[in-house]
Amino acid sequence: MRVPGQLYLTYLLALCLGLLCMVFVAYWNATWRGGFAWDGSAKQFNWHPVLMVAGLTVLYGSAAVLYRLPLTWGGSKLPWKLLHAGLTLLSFLLAVLGLFAVFNFHNKGNTPNLYSLHSWIGISTVALFTGQWLLGLASFLLPCTPLELRRRAKPLHVWLGSGIFILGIAASISGINEKLIFSLKGLNGTAQYSALPQEAQFANMLGVLIVAFGLTVLRILSNQAWQRPEGENSEVTQPLLQD
Amino acid sequence: MRVPGQLYLTYLLALCLGLLCMVFVAYWNATWRGGFAWDGSAKQFNWHPVLMVAGLTVLYGSAAVLYRLPLTWGGSKLPWKLLHAGLTLLSFLLAVLGLFAVFNFHNKGNTPNLYSLHSWIGISTVALFTGQWLLGLASFLLPCTPLELRRRAKPLHVWLGSGIFILGIAASISGINEKLIFSLKGLNGTAQYSALPQEAQFANMLGVLIVAFGLTVLRILSNQAWQRPEGENSEVTQPLLQD
Repeated sequence: MRVPGQLYLTYLLALCLGLLCMVFVAYWNATWRGGFAWDGSAKQFNWHPVLMVAGLTVLYGSAAVLYRLPLTWGGSKLPWKLLHAGLTLLSFLLAVLGLFAVFNFHNKGNTPNLYSLHSWIGISTVALFTGQWLLGLASFLLPCTPLELRRRAKPLHVWLGSGIFILGIAASISGINEKLIFSLKGLNGTAQYSALPQEAQFANMLGVLIVAFGLTVLRILSNQAWQRPEGENSEVTQPLLQD
Repeated sequence: MRVPGQLYLTYLLALCLGLLCMVFVAYWNATWRGGFAWDGSAKQFNWHPVLMVAGLTVLYGSAAVLYRLPLTWGGSKLPWKLLHAGLTLLSFLLAVLGLFAVFNFHNKGNTPNLYSLHSWIGISTVALFTGQWLLGLASFLLPCTPLELRRRAKPLHVWLGSGIFILGIAASISGINEKLIFSLKGLNGTAQYSALPQEAQFANMLGVLIVAFGLTVLRILSNQAWQRPEGENSEVTQPLLQD
C-alpha cells in the first residue's frame, strides 16, 4: 500500500504544533501568572489551562489520529485499540485534574463556579467525554457486545470524538480570552489587555497555535486515503479477549 | 437509492437549531443590550453578534450541508454549485458587515481594534473564508481549471470548509463570553455575570445552541452514506459554462 509522504509531513506538523501548545501554555503561566503550586492560590489555578490544553487538546488529538499512523495498520488492531483507550483515559484524567484545580481554587476564594459560557462549554465537553469513553469501552472492547451494535456505534464514536475535540478548542479559546480580560485590567500601573502587552501577544499566540493544531488534526482525520484499511483485522470483528 | 429517514430528521434538527440561534442572538441584543441602530453607538455594536452568527454559523452551515439534501442528487450538479457559491457569498457579506459594525463602533469611541484572542480568531476566520471562497470559485466554477487540479482541490476545500465553520464557532463562544464579562460588571446595582442573571443564562444558552447546531451540521457532513453519489454529474467533470 502506498502511503503518501504528505501524511508523515502532516503528522510531523501536528506533533510540532502540539509540543508548541504545551510549551506556550506552560511558559505563559510560569512567566506572567506567577508559576505553579497546589495550595488553593492563584498558582493552583495556573494548573487549569496547562492540564486542560494537555488533556483535552494535545493528548486527546494525538489519541484521535493514532489509527492514521501506517505503523498501526499491519497485524491485529487490538494493541492499538488498547493504546487509544489508554491515551484517552490519560487525557480524561488530566482534564479532571484540571477541573479540580479550578473548582478547588474557586471554592477556597468563595468565587462562584460554572457561571461563564466558557465554563458551560468546558463542563459539557468533559461530560460528553465521560460518556464517549464509557460507550467506546462498551462498544469496541467488551467481547459481549454484538457485532451489529459495534458497527453502528463506530460512525457515532468517530463523529462525537471530533465533536468533543472541537468543543475542547472552543473552551480553550474562550478560557484564554477570559483569563486575559480578568488579569490584564491595567491596575497598579500594569498594561491593559487592549494595549496588547507582551503577555497578551504571547497568550493570543497560544490560542492561534491551539487552533492550528486542531485544524491539522482534523486534516489527518478527514483524509479518507489515510484511514486504516478495513479488513479481517477490523475492529468490528475483533473485540477484546477474542483476539 | 435508499435515503435514511435519519438524514431528514438530522436536517430538521439542524434547521430548528439554526433558527433558534437566530432568535436567541436577536432577542438577547434587542431585550438586554438596548436594540439596534447604525449610528456608531452601542446599538450599532449589537449588529455584530447577530450578523456574525447569521453569516459565519447559520447560513454558512446551511450552505455546507446543501449537497447532503437528496433533492440535490439527481441531474446536474451545476445549479446546486451556484446555489452553494451564492449562499456562501451571502454569508461572507453578512460577516463583513458584522465586522464593519464593530470596527466602526470601536473607531467612533476610540476603542482599540483586534487586541483580544476573540478578535484574532474571528479575523483569521474571515480571512480564511475569503481565500476559501475565491479558491472555490477558481477550482470548481471556472471552466479553464484543469480537471486534475479540481480533483486535488476538493478534499482541501471540504476540510478547510469545516475548519472555517469550527473557527467561527470558537469565535462566537469567546465573543459571547467576552461581551457578557464586559457588560455584566455589577455596576449601578445591576447583577454581575457571576450571579448568573437572566441575561447571562439566556446568552449562555445561545452559546450552547450554537455548539449544538455546529455538532449537528458536522454529523450531517461526517456521514459518508449521506454524500451525493459520485457519477457522471460529479463536480470534477462539470465546471461552469461546460454544462
